[in-house]
Amino acid sequence: MRQTELFSKTHKDFPKDEVAINAQLLIKANFVQKLMAGVYSFMPLGYRTLEKIMAIIREEMNALGASELLMPALHPRSIWDATGRWDTMKKVMYQFKDDGGREFGLGTTHEEVIAVLGKTVIDSYADLPLAAYQIQMKFRNEPRAKSGLIRGRQFIMKDLYSFHADEQSLEDLYERSKRAYLNVFERAGLKAYVTEASGGDFTKSFSHEFQVETPAGEDETLLCRLCGFARNKEIADEKAGARCPKCESGVLEKAKTVEVGNIFKLGTKFSEAAGLYFKDKSGVSKPVIMASYGIGVDRLMGTIVEVHHDEKGIVWPESVAPYKVHLLRLGDEAEVQKFADEAYNHLTQAGVEVLYDDRPDVSAGEKFYDADLIGLPYRAIVSGKTVLQEKIEVKKRSEKEGKLMKAEELAKHLKI
Amino acid sequence: MRQTELFSKTHKDFPKDEVAINAQLLIKANFVQKLMAGVYSFMPLGYRTLEKIMAIIREEMNALGASELLMPALHPRSIWDATGRWDTMKKVMYQFKDDGGREFGLGTTHEEVIAVLGKTVIDSYADLPLAAYQIQMKFRNEPRAKSGLIRGRQFIMKDLYSFHADEQSLEDLYERSKRAYLNVFERAGLKAYVTEASGGDFTKSFSHEFQVETPAGEDETLLCRLCGFARNKEIADEKAGARCPKCESGVLEKAKTVEVGNIFKLGTKFSEAAGLYFKDKSGVSKPVIMASYGIGVDRLMGTIVEVHHDEKGIVWPESVAPYKVHLLRLGDEAEVQKFADEAYNHLTQAGVEVLYDDRPDVSAGEKFYDADLIGLPYRAIVSGKTVLQEKIEVKKRSEKEGKLMKAEELAKHLKI
Repeated sequence: MRQTELFSKTHKDFPKDEVAINAQLLIKANFVQKLMAGVYSFMPLGYRTLEKIMAIIREEMNALGASELLMPALHPRSIWDATGRWDTMKKVMYQFKDDGGREFGLGTTHEEVIAVLGKTVIDSYADLPLAAYQIQMKFRNEPRAKSGLIRGRQFIMKDLYSFHADEQSLEDLYERSKRAYLNVFERAGLKAYVTEASGGDFTKSFSHEFQVETPAGEDETLLCRLCGFARNKEIADEKAGARCPKCESGVLEKAKTVEVGNIFKLGTKFSEAAGLYFKDKSGVSKPVIMASYGIGVDRLMGTIVEVHHDEKGIVWPESVAPYKVHLLRLGDEAEVQKFADEAYNHLTQAGVEVLYDDRPDVSAGEKFYDADLIGLPYRAIVSGKTVLQEKIEVKKRSEKEGKLMKAEELAKHLKI
Repeated sequence: MRQTELFSKTHKDFPKDEVAINAQLLIKANFVQKLMAGVYSFMPLGYRTLEKIMAIIREEMNALGASELLMPALHPRSIWDATGRWDTMKKVMYQFKDDGGREFGLGTTHEEVIAVLGKTVIDSYADLPLAAYQIQMKFRNEPRAKSGLIRGRQFIMKDLYSFHADEQSLEDLYERSKRAYLNVFERAGLKAYVTEASGGDFTKSFSHEFQVETPAGEDETLLCRLCGFARNKEIADEKAGARCPKCESGVLEKAKTVEVGNIFKLGTKFSEAAGLYFKDKSGVSKPVIMASYGIGVDRLMGTIVEVHHDEKGIVWPESVAPYKVHLLRLGDEAEVQKFADEAYNHLTQAGVEVLYDDRPDVSAGEKFYDADLIGLPYRAIVSGKTVLQEKIEVKKRSEKEGKLMKAEELAKHLKI
């Protein structure tokens, strides 16, 4: 993509009330813009990163055998009354009436809707197990949204729901989903701890959160770095400094963490409320056993920035960078322009994702500054000096020194 | 995809209050489910069709040089007050307050937001022209939503916005966008008429709608079948039966149509309200000239069903069918099962998109009924009879008679 055609421009500043590092950097680099507290637009660079994250999530969810669908954000009050959550979630759900007195809620989560949809699909034990997920926009009334993409009034969730005839089937998918979730976070460049947490409204057994350590975290987690055991501080009997209850050799540390995902066993609460029953092998009608599995998609993007940045800007992991290489044309002379255009064409035709800084009348210093801020994995320079050698100077975002390469070599280098 | 793993099941019935054919067929085939009037869930088959439609739209918008982004649905009152539309759109916009008295609107359209975003990208004439689009969920207070996917309270729009320094640049993109829009509709299996219509609030010159003829249409269009001229009846001075004002040989007919897209010149109304100015070559500050270009994505899906169905079900154009071929296994005998499984593996490995009806204990009649209802372009049968010849019987959805083929032949046949 040529930068002169991209709906994007970096900035030196960010809104004064924006205290979160992820929001500050993402706004300066114009990956996102703030419409109001907790509500962001994803600009073209940010949208590409979202797409990369969503592609990783889709691959891992599809590998679990789940079908993708898309549920509405606008819900009638009736489905929330059926589970009693219209009242219990009043504080966090945006609820309103139209002129005709119809009452609506904006979806904070979709257990109520998916249970109703399950009724169109599930009749018998032979239909089970099943799993379905969506990547969708949710809403939540946050009086003080100040963590950038980590806690929004509007946010993007991947939510998967599974349906089972018995506990064993639920247990199987629940365990497989842990591995799938860790794959998602690893592939997105994050180390997540599988953390025991309260089952909340849903269940009396533990639920599991996936927590990533960063000073920006709003959660507190006790974790053992030796064996990876982790427990949400809210439910822990132990204190920091205590021996790890799992491996019994490590020591628990208190860490600030962001919850990037969670998985809950729901039991039959939602299926009973919706009337989602199946006939077992003997023809007896039973409520379907359910579980839900969430990942905060834009929260994940914000967390990646909190974990991967330096004083100059963002340092995207390759898997989620909007483009792989930032090609900078330094100088507007005809021969530099020609060489850089050819390098751009060569790389894009070779299948490399290139952001091409073809802006005229912009100093080298400004282009370097922007490239560091935007933070693509590789930076490639074409200047009067490199053109003399018919080469391009390439370096990783994390490296100090560049190497000179021919365009063909560079394409091969970047395709690995 | 194996049907036994898909979160889907066909039905004989649909909600009684559902009068639109698109909704009746899509619900029976379980492409969508109705949560309330004007609000639908896209089930896995429907979501795949949406994805195909969105991919076509993205290709055509990217070819116009536009960048994809994603704007929020939750808007602060302030940006709508700036253009005076908080009050004028009160009837169609869902507006509400939170506990703290903050006022929000759910986006019906995004001129206000994109103009604010333009300010982070546009400073000078050298930055122009630019174009950006999103595919996003919008909301509209519809007191009587009864046309299925054609008019929703919640709906998916592709909305593109362009930014120009002068009228000529606007005119260029506006004309190119007409061709891109016709490409989208043609590729999705629809003939659309470029229709002159009122500029509405935005402009005193014509805007253009893209109208598709179907008895389900809520609009009335005067059209000339000879030259393709079309004018929205609301603004036409002519009546049905009059001579076509363009070619002067055809006769205008009145037709029921669905508006699947529209393009508007906005002028400087939104840029002035948002303070979106650019410096021209002489350094003079001027408001950016804007235009907006919409396509109703789920409305397009509904319109395709209105145009492409028969008494047995949907007849998807290949370009937007969720899968290319419906492989039906008739009979549960081990050799039939083995042959059908192998055919399924062979086809999917060859890159053919297959929906595989592998359900046991389901009669041939039921499988035929479902296949016709779901309406994939090809139907392929494996039965005891075809297995004896080591072949598969294939026919188009629109054909009566099938042909016998080896799996390899079939893969080649379907890859064309």
